[in-house]
Amino acid sequence: MKSSFADALQEKINQLNNPTVMGLDPKPELVPPALLSQCPSHDSFEFWGEAYWQLNQRLLQRMESIIPAVKFQFACYEAMGVPGLQALEKSIQCAQQLGYLTILDAKQNDIGSTATLYAQASIGKTPAALQGEITDCSSQSEEEFRAYLNADAVTVNGYLGEDGVKPFLEVCQTLGKGCFVLVRTSNPSAGDLQDLKLEDGRHVYEAMAHLVAKWGDTMDYESFSPLGAVVGATWPHQAQALRQIMPHNLFLIPGYGAQGGTAKDAVAGFDQKGQGGIVNASRSLMGAWKKSSRPADEFDLACYDEAMAMRTALREALDAHRD
Amino acid sequence: MKSSFADALQEKINQLNNPTVMGLDPKPELVPPALLSQCPSHDSFEFWGEAYWQLNQRLLQRMESIIPAVKFQFACYEAMGVPGLQALEKSIQCAQQLGYLTILDAKQNDIGSTATLYAQASIGKTPAALQGEITDCSSQSEEEFRAYLNADAVTVNGYLGEDGVKPFLEVCQTLGKGCFVLVRTSNPSAGDLQDLKLEDGRHVYEAMAHLVAKWGDTMDYESFSPLGAVVGATWPHQAQALRQIMPHNLFLIPGYGAQGGTAKDAVAGFDQKGQGGIVNASRSLMGAWKKSSRPADEFDLACYDEAMAMRTALREALDAHRD
Repeated sequence: MKSSFADALQEKINQLNNPTVMGLDPKPELVPPALLSQCPSHDSFEFWGEAYWQLNQRLLQRMESIIPAVKFQFACYEAMGVPGLQALEKSIQCAQQLGYLTILDAKQNDIGSTATLYAQASIGKTPAALQGEITDCSSQSEEEFRAYLNADAVTVNGYLGEDGVKPFLEVCQTLGKGCFVLVRTSNPSAGDLQDLKLEDGRHVYEAMAHLVAKWGDTMDYESFSPLGAVVGATWPHQAQALRQIMPHNLFLIPGYGAQGGTAKDAVAGFDQKGQGGIVNASRSLMGAWKKSSRPADEFDLACYDEAMAMRTALREALDAHRD
Repeated sequence: MKSSFADALQEKINQLNNPTVMGLDPKPELVPPALLSQCPSHDSFEFWGEAYWQLNQRLLQRMESIIPAVKFQFACYEAMGVPGLQALEKSIQCAQQLGYLTILDAKQNDIGSTATLYAQASIGKTPAALQGEITDCSSQSEEEFRAYLNADAVTVNGYLGEDGVKPFLEVCQTLGKGCFVLVRTSNPSAGDLQDLKLEDGRHVYEAMAHLVAKWGDTMDYESFSPLGAVVGATWPHQAQALRQIMPHNLFLIPGYGAQGGTAKDAVAGFDQKGQGGIVNASRSLMGAWKKSSRPADEFDLACYDEAMAMRTALREALDAHRD
């Protein structure tokens, strides 16, 4: 059985020989001044929504030949209200039209019936027939469903157990989407809970990894499961151990660059063939124009330069990792 | 020092002698047919956004004399796209105008800088000056900030540790808001991770409770900390133990009614004075019209009847709990 998202992502990574996911996580300080003058609105949320959309569009168009996937951090858009969320919606569509795989980074979680709604909103379709009582989705025709954000994959927090993950997996199976569960995050205080030691000798994050391996194994996939894991680049030794626990799960790896993870750290969790992971960079790519010697309106080329350097660093690290 | 949200909530509960929070978690099957005919839009998301808003408005107006607080489940609104989110925004404003305390149930979580954006969007204010580089929020004037959802409190997942909770606490301190961290959730598979036993003898959920008690204790509050905990009504023995670990933290208690928790179960985590908790009911209140003998257009009175029965049950359980 093919896992559409996982297979499509690995294929795109192989094709571009670049396991980089570009994080489009806009903040006001990341918008180049050259763009701000083109956003004439007098409403502050509309102003930033338009600025984020202009910025994303430029970067997406510039990077399509070298970057296989983009990740969108939900909070960045939500902080600018409805105009921010509209920029998110348009950016996901634009990225898909350009051939990127898209990951919505919302770290969603809730109990069963509500997790279903999150899954519908992020990667699935909402039963939205105009009238009448809706109790059984299977009796509805295709036209009675409607997709909201429609990303190819989403990040999920597994603290609530299987109930909170299964609804996402069901959408993955039905629509060929993907899902990444937080296992070991990249932030300094990740260990507050994740590093506590269980009586059976495992750490809490390893127990989460075993759950992810189990949940994702309910379907027999040829390569990687649609259920992946978030494993921070800031913890390379743990990433190696986690690859043993989760041999068939894709790793989404944040923490490279601005957060301190090196290319060698970032690929520590890749498998022996140099596959099974994708490394995220957000601030270092979007904010590359701040450190670049290029003219102010070439912020997209500054991002391109930085992405090329990252690609080279990851390729070298992967060559060393395979040996 | 006063914790505005926690004190205001406890005061309102005492005044109405009712520790109930009404969950406004709309789904198509919870909208009474009597309301559907009043929503003439031809766009399915707009149709349901309008239906949810009409329903919430009627219930909020009907219940203000007996219910102290309302909880809004984010996913229910997000599943209907921008029109759904606009219904959420209007419903929060309407509830606040009517004197309810409002809780956004979004179970948010991310690393530090992104947690700040979630906190700004849910309970705080976003720095949204129209132009120029924004790096230091403290240098901005009040006019340069803008609130999006502006709820009084929000739910948060603590799996990422202190980094992911502190930004919410900072907004709580600055603006007098509140925050509830998931400790023991009400769903059947909650124990997959939360019940694992640590080498020091505690369960994972007890470790989370100790973290909440510690994080929330950084400020010296007269009564309850602005940092509360989500403790499911479906686990009464655990709730009693958690009250010992978190004597100064408010409990938000889901799982009453439709999920199987009784009134006695629900108040198990209240303190000796019968304070420190608020019990949520969503489906049993919003869907009360389905089981009621009232005429179809009296769905708000069916909800009122059910809320009165719940109030009576909670009062009796609290009387027994205090003895």
